[in-house]
Order: sequence, then structure tokens, then C-alpha cells
Amino acid sequence: MLASKANLAQPPFQNREPITPTEMWHQLVKPCQGFLDDVSATLQRQVETFEPEIANHAQYVISNPGKRLRPLLVGLAGGADRCYDSSLVEIGAIIEMIHLATLVHDDILDAAEIRHNRPTLSAMLNNDVTVLLGDCLFAHALKLATTFPTTLVCAAVAQATKRVCSGEILQTLNGTHKPSRTEYLRVIEMKTAELFGLSCDLGARYGSACPEAAEQVRNFGLALGTAYQIYDDCLDVFSSEKATGKSLGTDLIKGKYTLPILILLEEAPENEKSEIVSKLNQWDRCHTNWLMTFMNRHQVLVKSADVVRMILGDSRACLSLVERSHPVAALYKLSDFLELKITEMAPRETSDWCQLLL
Amino acid sequence: MLASKANLAQPPFQNREPITPTEMWHQLVKPCQGFLDDVSATLQRQVETFEPEIANHAQYVISNPGKRLRPLLVGLAGGADRCYDSSLVEIGAIIEMIHLATLVHDDILDAAEIRHNRPTLSAMLNNDVTVLLGDCLFAHALKLATTFPTTLVCAAVAQATKRVCSGEILQTLNGTHKPSRTEYLRVIEMKTAELFGLSCDLGARYGSACPEAAEQVRNFGLALGTAYQIYDDCLDVFSSEKATGKSLGTDLIKGKYTLPILILLEEAPENEKSEIVSKLNQWDRCHTNWLMTFMNRHQVLVKSADVVRMILGDSRACLSLVERSHPVAALYKLSDFLELKITEMAPRETSDWCQLLL
Repeated sequence: MLASKANLAQPPFQNREPITPTEMWHQLVKPCQGFLDDVSATLQRQVETFEPEIANHAQYVISNPGKRLRPLLVGLAGGADRCYDSSLVEIGAIIEMIHLATLVHDDILDAAEIRHNRPTLSAMLNNDVTVLLGDCLFAHALKLATTFPTTLVCAAVAQATKRVCSGEILQTLNGTHKPSRTEYLRVIEMKTAELFGLSCDLGARYGSACPEAAEQVRNFGLALGTAYQIYDDCLDVFSSEKATGKSLGTDLIKGKYTLPILILLEEAPENEKSEIVSKLNQWDRCHTNWLMTFMNRHQVLVKSADVVRMILGDSRACLSLVERSHPVAALYKLSDFLELKITEMAPRETSDWCQLLL
Repeated sequence: MLASKANLAQPPFQNREPITPTEMWHQLVKPCQGFLDDVSATLQRQVETFEPEIANHAQYVISNPGKRLRPLLVGLAGGADRCYDSSLVEIGAIIEMIHLATLVHDDILDAAEIRHNRPTLSAMLNNDVTVLLGDCLFAHALKLATTFPTTLVCAAVAQATKRVCSGEILQTLNGTHKPSRTEYLRVIEMKTAELFGLSCDLGARYGSACPEAAEQVRNFGLALGTAYQIYDDCLDVFSSEKATGKSLGTDLIKGKYTLPILILLEEAPENEKSEIVSKLNQWDRCHTNWLMTFMNRHQVLVKSADVVRMILGDSRACLSLVERSHPVAALYKLSDFLELKITEMAPRETSDWCQLLL
């Protein structure tokens, strides 16, 4: 039986009164705040399980002031805005810890120095300790997953972790080879969407959804995660470090072909393409204004946002298949929130570019 | 009830006819060869589970021509020299995969270029891919561990992995600070002995030992692993690259305080100590002959070997507590084998030193 839209708390985004992303985020998070606080407390308790000399580094990673998007997904998919039990909290903590471990390793690979307005662990410690601390966090998250009575949670978490890391490897192996859109989507589905899908899947299961509903909610998560990664790739090109609190422009510096670059190369006339590719392959900050001119000329941000909106539409279509018994209104809202964010994104000012690439 | 030594296949090492380490190794491995081949085949099958672009790298790591010491321990502790089932094979493959993953990350940290007579992955690929491939191997090993009906295997493997990586972190954090012997032993128990203990523990359990016997066999493994790491630390200082097939002298280059160095500093008179410490802290290959002179003068290899022999004695004492019902003769032999190896170790020739440190 398909769900009627009548049971949704909010009409679709397009028909609503204008609302700022900040207001919308608060509306989303507020009913789950108790759940998210419990996830944070559970994560905090894990610090004690590390060796005394390592605990402060684990603490630094765990106290990462990120948005806790994945625990939020677990909460929303599991109905934590109404009620929840300790299993759902554990799921949120496990997936967030896996995510934090991947960030620790990502920051080494990207040589990123700032994340969430503070130095990355790899910027403060040597890479040796950072690699190993990431390993410890992975191992501890999987240990936590074994506290469930069945191996289902641990198996799903281990499989998702492998897919996330495989996606990162494929991206790295691609190097400066231009992928097709299909190849690009395959990578981001693995490296980002997989944990979104897992959060939704396990959230729904431990929030008493039937397996069929959990599967649909998982598909929603996969689409949302894909849209989120494209949004993040747009941020790296178009937003400012001040607004996001993390190192930006790193994709350009590493010569990564993200969707904005792929669209630029699709749209640019033949005579521009080789120059764009050549500059991207040997990126230098002095090319920045030049590149932004091309981005604006070919409306790359607008076209990237169209792709994000289309995928978000797909995410909502997955929810329309979920049985009425499992509440999904909050997940619709999250999809709407991301649509609002991509829609309001504006190209960064030249001064930002100069600052961050100096 | 304590086991009588009468049921052991061989009298204790000290009373036996002289035997070469190679002969002894073959005696140990031969009855387990079928089991070890099955472990290799199981590991080989895992290659197919990686993404096509990654499979060849996974294959390279998995085909590592090492001694498969940990699967051997699983086999010997589980009675695979007589009979075994597929669970025991899976345990062997899981623990070997965890070990291979730690080697992949270790080789990055040590900047090692050769292991088992072939280039390390980190010497062939960039470090980014190598970090992530190690992550994939960890995740896959834990995924395999979830194929057991209970979470016991996965929990034990995840916990051991965390301890191994924690040991490596502590060693790295120590940096050029001289640890006490207690601190040194704590690190090697974590980074090396833990997986030996796990191999023995799970091997014994899945070889039908009662929990009490498995606990004693685990203690044997912990002691054996500690002795093995000290032996390995002696190899790094005293053996030749030609004999071991891996990069040596890396501990000295990194300024690591391993047991030979700790013993040297205990034995050297006050006026020599500060010079030794100062040279170790800023290691240069031209100090090599100088250091070896001190090592010989203070009989450091002999004294290190005494420590190894004492710990191997402890390992055998653990087995004497194992109930008669669980066969442990082959484990005695493994302890004896390591004793023979440390006893026959001779300081490398100066020419080896010059070659490997050039």
C-alpha cells in the first residue's frame, strides 16, 4: 500500500512559504535533539575505552563539531523525533564513528588543514599517528556493532565501510583522468551515499520498519547522499571557507573531476576544452579568476543545482513507496532542506578565492 | 587437571638431537599444510569481492609470500594437524587478512620499500591508495567475521585490531623518548602479541577446546608473540637483509628504542650512554660500525636472546596448564622453533650494514 501525502507534516517544499535554511535546519533537528544528545553522550563514553595516551586524540576526533548528519538520518529514519530506544542511539554512534574515522584518513589524503573551523588531526600530529588513529576508530566502531545480538549490524557496517573506502580508492586511482558522469556517480555513491543509505536502513530497521520499508528508506538515503556529495563538490568550487569552516578548493588543487568540472567540459566549446583540461591538470591559484569566468559563462552552478534537484526528486519518490505505517515526513524535510541549500548557493567572491588559495 | 608431558610428541627442545631451524619448520608446517592451503585458497577467493580496479592491489597484498605464522597458530591451536573444519579455515583467513592490513599501513609508517623480497605496496603506489586499501582489508576481514553465527568472532577480531593499532600509536608517540622495559613490553604485547593470542584463542575454541583451555592457549600465544617481536627487533639490528628478505635497520633509522638498544643503555657505562643516545637520536649510517662495536662489547645479542628464551619458557609454562584433552604438542614445537632461531642468530657482517644503509 502506498503512502498518501496527506499524512505528511508539511506540504512539498515548492508550495511552502519561504523559509531560511537555518530555520529549516532547526525545525528538522529540534524534535531529534534528545536523540542526538544521547548519540553524542554515547560517543563521548567511548573515549574511555582508548589507551590513556590515545584518549585525548580520540576525544579530539569524537568532539568534531560537525552537523552529525548521519546520526540525524538514523534518528529521522527510526522515528526518534517521537520515541527511540538505546539500540537506535548505538546505531547512530557507530555510524558517526565510522564517518569520523573516514574523515581522519580523508584529511591525510587531501592534506586538509581545517575542518569545522579547527585544525585537522593530520595538521596537528604526524601522519603516522593519524593513520593508526583512524584504524582504531574503525575497529572500535565495529566492536560496538558486535554488542547487538545478531551479526546483522556489524555485517552491514563492515560492508558499508569497505564500499566507502573503495569509492575513495577509485577516486584516487582515477587521478587526473576525466571520468564519465556514470563513473563519477559510481564513486560518490560508494564514498558518500553508502553511509547515508546505511544510516537510513539501520535507522528504519531499529525504528521498527518492516524490511521492505527499510529497503525503500535505504534507497532514499542513497539518493540523498549522492545529492549531498554533489552539493559538497559545488561548495568546494563555489562557496567560501568562511561560510563552510573547512578547507576549500582542495578538489581543484588535486585536479579532481567533480560534477561542476564535468559540466564545464560538456558545455565549453571545443577550443576552450583543452585549455581548461591543461590548466586543471597543473592547477595554480593564478588560474582561479580565469576558471570562475568560464564557470559563470556556462552557468555551471545552475546546471549542477539542476542535477542535485533531480536526484532529490528521486529521493522523495523512494519515500512515496514506503508503507503508511512507517513515518517519513521528517525525511522529506531533509531532502527539502538540501534543495534549499543548493538553490541559495552563490558563487564565492574573488577575494575569498585569493585568500584560500594563497 | 594438568596435562602430563608424556602425551607430547617430542621431548623438550633442550634434550633433543640437534636439528636445523629449516628442518624444524618443515616438521611443524607439514602436518598443517592442507589447512594452510585451504586458508590461502579462502584468502584468494576474497579478491573477487573487491571492485575490479582494486582487485589487483588486493591480490598483491593477499599473495604476500610471508610465513603465514598466524594461520599456522590457528591451525596448531585448533588441531588442524589432525582434522579441521571450514570454520577454522575462516578464522585463519580472517586473522591473516587483519595482519596483512596492518602490514600495509606499517609499511607506510616505516617507509619500508621491501618486504618478503618484493616491493611493498606503499613503495609502488601512492600513500593515499595504500592507506585506503588497508582500510578495505580491515573492513573485509571484519565482514568475513560476521559470517559466524555469533558476534563472538567479530568482537574478538575488532578488539584485537584496536589493540594492535593502539600499540603502534603508543610506539609512534614515544618517538625518541626512551621507554622503560615495562613500557616497551606493553607496546609489543599490543602491536604483535595480541594477534598471536587471538589466533591461539579462536583456533583453540574452534578446535573444540573448552573455554579454560582456550584461555591458556591464548596466554601461550601472547607470550610467544612477545618473544617473536623481540626476536624481530633483534633481526632488525643484527641480521642481514639478504637473510630476511625485508628492509632492515629501519628501527635505528627511526630512532626506535627496541630491546637491544635498551639493554645496550643498561649495560654501557655512564660516559658512553649520552653518546649512544645522541647518535641514536640523529641516526646516520656512518654510526653503524661504531654502534656494533658497543653491541658486541656489551654482549647485547646474547642478553636479548636470554630474554627471548625466558619468555618462551613462560609460553611453555602456559601450555603445561592446558587440560590433557586438548593437544598442544605442536605448540610446544613452535616455541622451540623460535628458541632455535634466536639461539642461532649471529651479528650481521659489516658489509651487510654498509649495503643496507647506503
